[in-house]
Amino acid sequence: MTTPIRRKARSSKDVEELLISLADNVIDAARDGADPVLKIPVRALSNVEFSKKTRVIELGGNKTERTFFNLGTAKKFMQTVLVGDALSVLQREGLSRSLREIYYRTKHTIADSNENTFDGQEESDPIIEDLEVTLECLREELHVRAEAAGTLVGPMTIVDDGDTIDCARLGKGGYAVPSIVEPEEIRIKRCTADFVLLIEKGTQWNALNEDKFWKRWNCVLLTGNGQPPRGVRRLARRLHDEYKLPVYVLVDNDPWGYYIYSVVKQGSINLAFESMRMAIPDAKFIGLSSRDPQNHGLPRNVGIKLNDKDIARAKEIKNYQWFQKKEWQTEIDLMLRSGLKYELDALANKDFRYLTTDYLPKKLKDKDWLD
Amino acid sequence: MTTPIRRKARSSKDVEELLISLADNVIDAARDGADPVLKIPVRALSNVEFSKKTRVIELGGNKTERTFFNLGTAKKFMQTVLVGDALSVLQREGLSRSLREIYYRTKHTIADSNENTFDGQEESDPIIEDLEVTLECLREELHVRAEAAGTLVGPMTIVDDGDTIDCARLGKGGYAVPSIVEPEEIRIKRCTADFVLLIEKGTQWNALNEDKFWKRWNCVLLTGNGQPPRGVRRLARRLHDEYKLPVYVLVDNDPWGYYIYSVVKQGSINLAFESMRMAIPDAKFIGLSSRDPQNHGLPRNVGIKLNDKDIARAKEIKNYQWFQKKEWQTEIDLMLRSGLKYELDALANKDFRYLTTDYLPKKLKDKDWLD
Repeated sequence: MTTPIRRKARSSKDVEELLISLADNVIDAARDGADPVLKIPVRALSNVEFSKKTRVIELGGNKTERTFFNLGTAKKFMQTVLVGDALSVLQREGLSRSLREIYYRTKHTIADSNENTFDGQEESDPIIEDLEVTLECLREELHVRAEAAGTLVGPMTIVDDGDTIDCARLGKGGYAVPSIVEPEEIRIKRCTADFVLLIEKGTQWNALNEDKFWKRWNCVLLTGNGQPPRGVRRLARRLHDEYKLPVYVLVDNDPWGYYIYSVVKQGSINLAFESMRMAIPDAKFIGLSSRDPQNHGLPRNVGIKLNDKDIARAKEIKNYQWFQKKEWQTEIDLMLRSGLKYELDALANKDFRYLTTDYLPKKLKDKDWLD
Repeated sequence: MTTPIRRKARSSKDVEELLISLADNVIDAARDGADPVLKIPVRALSNVEFSKKTRVIELGGNKTERTFFNLGTAKKFMQTVLVGDALSVLQREGLSRSLREIYYRTKHTIADSNENTFDGQEESDPIIEDLEVTLECLREELHVRAEAAGTLVGPMTIVDDGDTIDCARLGKGGYAVPSIVEPEEIRIKRCTADFVLLIEKGTQWNALNEDKFWKRWNCVLLTGNGQPPRGVRRLARRLHDEYKLPVYVLVDNDPWGYYIYSVVKQGSINLAFESMRMAIPDAKFIGLSSRDPQNHGLPRNVGIKLNDKDIARAKEIKNYQWFQKKEWQTEIDLMLRSGLKYELDALANKDFRYLTTDYLPKKLKDKDWLD
């Protein structure tokens, strides 16, 4: 078994220096009468591969050059410097802001022209991703927030912005996981859980929290209310790294559930760079698997017919290099053959508490998961 | 000034009895050889009106009859009894579950037939709404959860499921507001805030929490991450009722912002029944108003051109009875004339902290809001 790649988190000072080096680069070139140039790693499928060694999707070494004295790249060059400047303000002032706010901050009409620096956020977002890969800083280290959409309870204590929060004492509500959970922001002071249960849907999280599943099974209950946002993935990874906790992923039995699991495990194709500190190659899939409806006696009428999109997606996933294990091929084939997908919610057909009292306990006792 | 309608929250025991009375009704009718009948208030625009007295959108008195021995209503009658039975299980076992789980729980194939009790959730959801209005119980009192999507910080202490939570000590994350915040579930033990700021977007909530706006201005920061879910509206209403806190609604300057404000204030047309304990007729609109971009020197290029849908929606809202005040007519006209809408995020164009340090302080000092 290989070890996932680790890298020390960057401090705010490091990041600011990196951002300043970007500007220095321009100044130095100007002083030398040379054309300032930025070398930016290519973020495209052609420059992405699944590493058998690290078991995550990684970005390759190809780079593209962005120069100032080039009609094709001058505007992007200018935009990169503007965004870099705005990001350095965030570091200096100890702030974090959203992609949208950064877009608005850097938008203005260029002097003596009718041209805007940016016409839409679709121009500034990729620049932030460029800087992320160029400077090898995660978006979170650049202090750029996404929407916060996760919730957590469990036997752990965190320190967030000077506040010590006992996550075992947050009632039915729970702790709203922020978008940025880097060690500079959130310290995990104590965690006595045996594992992390990462749940696709908020409704299941609610049911499991209400039923106090996490007390009985001594685990951390974490949800991203759908496709887990980066903060939730990063926190699961930190619990895995810092406290050696296994991470079990509980998703619907459909191709989107497979995909959520695979992003947690290997990272995503679109943002391969982030895999380095987001992916959890040891994460396990705890269902629903295609065998579960039968194993648990779910009637076929609570299954949902696979539509064309589902079938196409399942076949696509079946071809991914990281789904080539025999067990996974069987799992996906079984879904395709049955022609049905099942939601976790369907377990309520047995009993409102079935997930808590039967499904998960059996899975955990039998170590019945896919890897 | 009139007082908003109040009604004592129903206890779990009351609700269970109401649900049982539904079944008793059927048994009694059967015993008398009569046709069991349910009288269900009509949930349609024709049975909804804005009350000038209470200043909320209210459901009228029209009812429809659902009988068992009637081909047209027999299936719905049976569905109503099935859902009522599932809901009584939730009361008896002290559980709450989602709309989707209730759908799955009540779905089965009718004996000796190929017919399902329910073919989709679109059949069971309206039945739950029927029971809500028939029994005069809020969905929350029926223990039916929606997705939880709100976040809160501020100088208040709540007791949630036996845990005492100091909402002033929850870092940048905050308390994840559950879907159900009825007094039986959540007790507000202490609140020393001066007002509630109900924020449309999570990104602004993040910025204001990070900047500790709520400490400086002694308020509760609450967001529903978009259109506020019922739990968030209900919690704002409870803070307004129980602690006499003014509620200020901070939304984008667009017709959807107006609409969010109006739902918080008067309730919604679709679920007029809930207005009774959700709406806050004294809520104020703290912007963005159509005058704000100019007042705060925002460049026109951070405005977004109104599209046809925006224009149609703005005109529709302008005609609502509860938007007939002169100030509101002027506000909406100004947006339509300018042809532009503005997001709160656009304030970042001035400065990353502008919302915290300039916009809101000025609004609050000048009491510059719309009613």
